[in-house]
Amino acid sequence: MLIDNVKSPEDIKGFSKEQLEKLAEEIRKGLMNRLSKKGGHFGPNFGFVEATIALHYVFNSPVDKFVFDVSHQSYVHKMLTGRKDAYFYDEHFADVSGYTNPEESEHDFFNVGHTSTSISLACGLAKGRDLKGDNENIVAVIGDGSLSGGEALEGLDFASELNSNFIIIVNDNDMSIAENHGGLYKNLKELRDSDGTCECNLFKAMGLDYRYVADGNNIESLIKAFEEVKDIDHPVVVHINTLKGKGYKPAETNKENWHWCMPFDVETGKSNVDDFGEDYGRLTCEYLLKKMKQDKSVVVIVAAVPTCIGFTGDKRKEAGKQFIDVGIAEEHAVAMASGIAKNGGKPVFATHSSFFQRTYDQISQDLCINNNPATLLVNTASVYGMNDVTHLGIYDIPMMSNIPNLVYLAPTSCEEYFAMLEWSIEQNEHPVAIRIPCNGVIRTGKEADADYSVINRYKVTESGQDIAIIALGDFYQIGEKLAELIADKTGVAPTLINPRYITGIDNEMLEDLKKNHTKVVTLEDGILDGGFGEKIAAFYAATDMKVYNYGLKKEFIDRYSVDEILKENRITPKQIFEDLHIVSD
Amino acid sequence: MLIDNVKSPEDIKGFSKEQLEKLAEEIRKGLMNRLSKKGGHFGPNFGFVEATIALHYVFNSPVDKFVFDVSHQSYVHKMLTGRKDAYFYDEHFADVSGYTNPEESEHDFFNVGHTSTSISLACGLAKGRDLKGDNENIVAVIGDGSLSGGEALEGLDFASELNSNFIIIVNDNDMSIAENHGGLYKNLKELRDSDGTCECNLFKAMGLDYRYVADGNNIESLIKAFEEVKDIDHPVVVHINTLKGKGYKPAETNKENWHWCMPFDVETGKSNVDDFGEDYGRLTCEYLLKKMKQDKSVVVIVAAVPTCIGFTGDKRKEAGKQFIDVGIAEEHAVAMASGIAKNGGKPVFATHSSFFQRTYDQISQDLCINNNPATLLVNTASVYGMNDVTHLGIYDIPMMSNIPNLVYLAPTSCEEYFAMLEWSIEQNEHPVAIRIPCNGVIRTGKEADADYSVINRYKVTESGQDIAIIALGDFYQIGEKLAELIADKTGVAPTLINPRYITGIDNEMLEDLKKNHTKVVTLEDGILDGGFGEKIAAFYAATDMKVYNYGLKKEFIDRYSVDEILKENRITPKQIFEDLHIVSD
Repeated sequence: MLIDNVKSPEDIKGFSKEQLEKLAEEIRKGLMNRLSKKGGHFGPNFGFVEATIALHYVFNSPVDKFVFDVSHQSYVHKMLTGRKDAYFYDEHFADVSGYTNPEESEHDFFNVGHTSTSISLACGLAKGRDLKGDNENIVAVIGDGSLSGGEALEGLDFASELNSNFIIIVNDNDMSIAENHGGLYKNLKELRDSDGTCECNLFKAMGLDYRYVADGNNIESLIKAFEEVKDIDHPVVVHINTLKGKGYKPAETNKENWHWCMPFDVETGKSNVDDFGEDYGRLTCEYLLKKMKQDKSVVVIVAAVPTCIGFTGDKRKEAGKQFIDVGIAEEHAVAMASGIAKNGGKPVFATHSSFFQRTYDQISQDLCINNNPATLLVNTASVYGMNDVTHLGIYDIPMMSNIPNLVYLAPTSCEEYFAMLEWSIEQNEHPVAIRIPCNGVIRTGKEADADYSVINRYKVTESGQDIAIIALGDFYQIGEKLAELIADKTGVAPTLINPRYITGIDNEMLEDLKKNHTKVVTLEDGILDGGFGEKIAAFYAATDMKVYNYGLKKEFIDRYSVDEILKENRITPKQIFEDLHIVSD
Repeated sequence: MLIDNVKSPEDIKGFSKEQLEKLAEEIRKGLMNRLSKKGGHFGPNFGFVEATIALHYVFNSPVDKFVFDVSHQSYVHKMLTGRKDAYFYDEHFADVSGYTNPEESEHDFFNVGHTSTSISLACGLAKGRDLKGDNENIVAVIGDGSLSGGEALEGLDFASELNSNFIIIVNDNDMSIAENHGGLYKNLKELRDSDGTCECNLFKAMGLDYRYVADGNNIESLIKAFEEVKDIDHPVVVHINTLKGKGYKPAETNKENWHWCMPFDVETGKSNVDDFGEDYGRLTCEYLLKKMKQDKSVVVIVAAVPTCIGFTGDKRKEAGKQFIDVGIAEEHAVAMASGIAKNGGKPVFATHSSFFQRTYDQISQDLCINNNPATLLVNTASVYGMNDVTHLGIYDIPMMSNIPNLVYLAPTSCEEYFAMLEWSIEQNEHPVAIRIPCNGVIRTGKEADADYSVINRYKVTESGQDIAIIALGDFYQIGEKLAELIADKTGVAPTLINPRYITGIDNEMLEDLKKNHTKVVTLEDGILDGGFGEKIAAFYAATDMKVYNYGLKKEFIDRYSVDEILKENRITPKQIFEDLHIVSD
């Protein structure tokens, strides 16, 4: 294969048009090999094969610098920059992450995984270059879906202030993960429909020069366009129209399902992974659909990840006007939720823990200062969640639980989760966030408390003595096992507590524990710093109570094994029992 | 006066054109009375007198709902909705806040003070209305300066998805607090220059209908425009060109200085407040200008508040290309700083503590995961800082100190602040944030340590026994006084520690304290929840050390007295000494 001799982008510079096209074919084979066996981002990479080849043909990476938005479309870039084995050979799959990664290659400049960041990061590279007096090309690649994010729009607005070389490739495949939402997409359509010539032009309105490439999967057209802007002395947008999933019929046809894939059979396109059984996405969707039918003021909001709470296309249709996908616009979503609650609606906004980071100020200012009763559903907020360094769900407790007025709840079972959700939607006193459980659908068979209006009231689930275990949310089950172990080993049953509320202290109960307890163990599914356990430690800090906090160390971790991480942080019943030194007391 | 009979907006509906114009005159007198004696937002209110009158003349508040961006231009709205006494009568100044406030009036819907939020909040009101089947007008007012913020751009993009009544008034006075920055302002200029007719139109590119009013200080034109869009069945932008500071020559001439004013003499326009003497804004600017001249790779970034670090117009000019005002675009600022650091520059981004909330995800993802050596200067991060509920500087410790990789420093003196800043700019290992001291310029006369590269190494400043006081940043001086008091009262000098690092624990030193200390007091200038002291409490949680954490309660506070707040939280040396129960031990 041609690609066998491509060790670096230099090696494709002499290729003929035919060779470049053959290279594209080979690259799709490599992509298919990895994606069908391991899963990953399908549509974004299949659609961006030709553009990546053209970029590396025209520019001189790593002197010229590419910044990929989200970087889920960077597989082809990786293949052309010395990392092709990770796609063609199964034993090398683990060599690369799913995103750009400076530790892997000098051709990667940032570890990114969140959307809408490439323009601003690349503006920084350009400004750094200008300060040094260098003259390399700086190229930001961004998909149409990412354009609606505030950071991208801020970057787009600022870019024109750079009076120097700066190239923004807008990879327009007319899709976000799901369909796009927002007025700017009407303008992108007008631009596509007019071959880039319509007068009203978002990019020009942002003060930028503009070029259009109608066939963004044609290597020749792309090379021509890129050659024209190479070494340009001012910022320019090159808007290219690509086909998401190009080269694989099922992906071209059903773009949303093929944005990201699990391992699948290449012949049929069918997933090789069995049904996962019950999951909270589907259960949440089912509950919310029923709720919306009963109450026309309930409205569900998502920000481009509708399926995180099970809202596939058919369910979105079923929900009708009571479902809003704002696109990638988490800031807008939270502020709008506050407004809806203020005007009598019952909004529920759901996204991943890691993406709530994108809307801290709106949670604090727009929502919590105004104390409006919106519900935030925090998905994959757990060590059991996504494990890429850019998508970790272990920081939301310190981030959100210290914002005044917010009531942040951690359910310990399926029954409790839905009871909390029902209460939250129906109450009108507080902004409420709920961590969707992430350790499997655990049913207790018992009805959960329906009323959570007395804030910070913890629940004793097993009454004992000497040791009290306060086990929060997903780690409640570890608490249960620890309680059993202690009872078994010592003959004395400890007290087990489900705190339920992450955002505060049950002063009365904690005070009461002093009577016949000497040790308190806290367990939380997230980093310890700034978290829940430290509040308990602070409560008892000037007393004789001994407190043992268990949670994760404050650090960025990447592609970890849950079991290993739990062990490293001594979060297993056996390790905790050891730490308590009960025998030696 | 006409305004004496205006108890509610209803009362101006029958006014003639002449009466409305007279009303505008009277209103400016009221504004002048309050602003010249008490200070406040001058330019935004003087420029928006006619538009506010026209809005209340045409629409029916509070059934029709106005949402003001930042709401620093809402004084006139307050005067027309029953709160005029707070402007005309000095004894009523304290009746109103500087921002919209639902507790003051049913005509105010949100407590807001941050920029770029009005469109999204108002979208929420509109969606709430639609869910209920109501039909009132929803009007968002936003200034041109606020448009560059991510939240506003997300809202602008989303708005067109509302297929119902929604009116966005763009109050374009061609100014942010300082001058505007960003490409979209070129488009606003084109629109103004072409009387709103140029084809390339940002608002239309966002999918919105559009109207233009050339003289935004002409009540008749405004009424005509607003009447045309009243009860409209789809989203529309009404772009009005106003004169910031209209009606007062000094403010019309020097718009930046008159955005916000201290009490002043109306005749001369001169401030009545004496020079504050030394302040960290000017000192920081002086230091950075010198630094930039020595090193061409140093670049200072601000987001529309250049004077928070002393960069007045002349200083910005002096800094030239090494100074960047990104406009209101904090997300972009932090991501760009990361990019600059990656490509060899030495970026310093400064803004207020409360505005760092707008860029949590960029600090975490774009900057800290990538571990790029940018410097963040956190201004007014203190109970001594701004005291409006929307601008508090007491939450940044929990927000920022729990983000992995970030080194967050709290200097205790002028010398230490500049030593830390110098170190931060020159090192290339970590993203570093520094809390600019806020309790006055305190000089020790001693040289501070130059090297902070050994992370989390606290400094014992007074060696003693029994009690150790760990006093962070601005509260170090309270720690000093407490140490004196303890020594005086007990004859035994305690140990005093300057921890310097907010983001971690000095395990070795804390371990060492166990030898001859039984009590540890922590002091921090911010809320306790998720903060610094809790980390110390957690460190000692399973030992015999008694820990006493002092800081603020987690709550939203508004227009508070510092002394009272400190007393309420028992943060005075005397109260702390009482709490320690030393005598009874």
